[in-house]
Amino acid sequence: MVKDRNYLTDRIRSLKSFLCIGLDPDLNKIPNPYRSSSEPLLRFCADVLEATIDLAIAYKINIAFFERQGSDGFRQLESLVKLIPKECFIIADAKRADIGNTSAQYAEYYFSKLNVDAITLHPYMGVDSLEPFLQFPDKWSIILALTSNAGGADFETLELKTKALVFEKVMERFNESKYSSKIMYVVGATQKDYMQAIRRVSPNNFLLIPGVGEQGGDLKKTIEELRNDVEGILINVSRGIIFPQIEDITKMSIRNAALHYSKQMQQLF
Amino acid sequence: MVKDRNYLTDRIRSLKSFLCIGLDPDLNKIPNPYRSSSEPLLRFCADVLEATIDLAIAYKINIAFFERQGSDGFRQLESLVKLIPKECFIIADAKRADIGNTSAQYAEYYFSKLNVDAITLHPYMGVDSLEPFLQFPDKWSIILALTSNAGGADFETLELKTKALVFEKVMERFNESKYSSKIMYVVGATQKDYMQAIRRVSPNNFLLIPGVGEQGGDLKKTIEELRNDVEGILINVSRGIIFPQIEDITKMSIRNAALHYSKQMQQLF
Repeated sequence: MVKDRNYLTDRIRSLKSFLCIGLDPDLNKIPNPYRSSSEPLLRFCADVLEATIDLAIAYKINIAFFERQGSDGFRQLESLVKLIPKECFIIADAKRADIGNTSAQYAEYYFSKLNVDAITLHPYMGVDSLEPFLQFPDKWSIILALTSNAGGADFETLELKTKALVFEKVMERFNESKYSSKIMYVVGATQKDYMQAIRRVSPNNFLLIPGVGEQGGDLKKTIEELRNDVEGILINVSRGIIFPQIEDITKMSIRNAALHYSKQMQQLF
Repeated sequence: MVKDRNYLTDRIRSLKSFLCIGLDPDLNKIPNPYRSSSEPLLRFCADVLEATIDLAIAYKINIAFFERQGSDGFRQLESLVKLIPKECFIIADAKRADIGNTSAQYAEYYFSKLNVDAITLHPYMGVDSLEPFLQFPDKWSIILALTSNAGGADFETLELKTKALVFEKVMERFNESKYSSKIMYVVGATQKDYMQAIRRVSPNNFLLIPGVGEQGGDLKKTIEELRNDVEGILINVSRGIIFPQIEDITKMSIRNAALHYSKQMQQLF
């Protein structure tokens, strides 16, 4: 099953939703019955999957919460990925990047061994540093462009001598490569002043959009301004779904939180 | 034992060397007796340690080669770190960075659980993204500034409207933070046209310098231009030492390759 642009467009249209569910299993927030198991991250995420599998276009796995537990965390990560049905789109939110020979090791692990569909990447070291990810057949590179945190203003939105902003130059430069159809960009829903600039520089690419929900990004505005003619957006919600604002986190409360977002998306579709 | 600037200066002066040995255990290059063991990365690196322990100011562990093997690789990484004597300076070359809450997970793993002294980091997402690393007591953040690969020219050396280059702005911005004394920058020895700019913007910081050896950086010029009054440079050699250009890779050939570099450094000290 090739998970190309058509696959994503079809999947979004059939569910009338852009929902990407973020799996950030924070051991300090996971409820007690899970926490006392020997595989708390895996058990908790498995229940999130069960509760939401018909509602998610994609799952974004935040690797840091697994790496926090070292080898034991990676063991749970490897089991988790096997649980996700093959028709889902799986993103490793790892934010890696290094010189080519080193990036090749990360690409091998995530794309071959773990066999996820996409990975998030830092652009700072330039195009050659991401080449091993970009050239991997049938896999997506999701490159940081304009992130949702306040610190994004430190470098990402600086103006270059050429008038372009740094994040615009990043998108331009990677779009010049022959891999553009397999490149997504990370764009924060909090960055409402730059949404038109993003679609001017990058009209065709899919975007992975964090920042809706707790971080304050507006869902309606995000969809209106960033959706394109292939429906090219994945809107990620992590804490707002897996740790809903109620005392008792259960599969039902997680499903209800996911339904809340997917129904909003269906209404705005 | 607090491994602060004084510790590094003293250690460099007592060994008359800037040598950082890079542990990049590439399974395709590791000789056969190791490769057939159940812990090839660990066994190979343990022998590199034994062969070079009196010659290294620091060891830089390339996390990608362990992550390539997933949970099993991390298990070997965790055993390896325990083998390195506490008086050594240990760098996790992980090139991580994410929004604050996620960066905190990486900081906890590398600084608390693994207990290394330093980690390499991507600056793209801004100062707040690295805060969990920067504020960690007695630990170093090693931030990418001007990398040794050709792609470094894609973004790192672009000129901003203010005339500063992107990598100069990165160093300026992080040096304004209150953590400057625990910040190193990565600067490639291949970047000979920019060495004066680097010490103009960042006269006091320690630098971690890859690119000597196979990548073509000149050792003499690097030391002359980048050393400062606290001796603030660590010069990394990875493949040139652990995979010397001979058919038979043994502890003796690895030691001889390390001696080759440390003797050169002593002569130039």
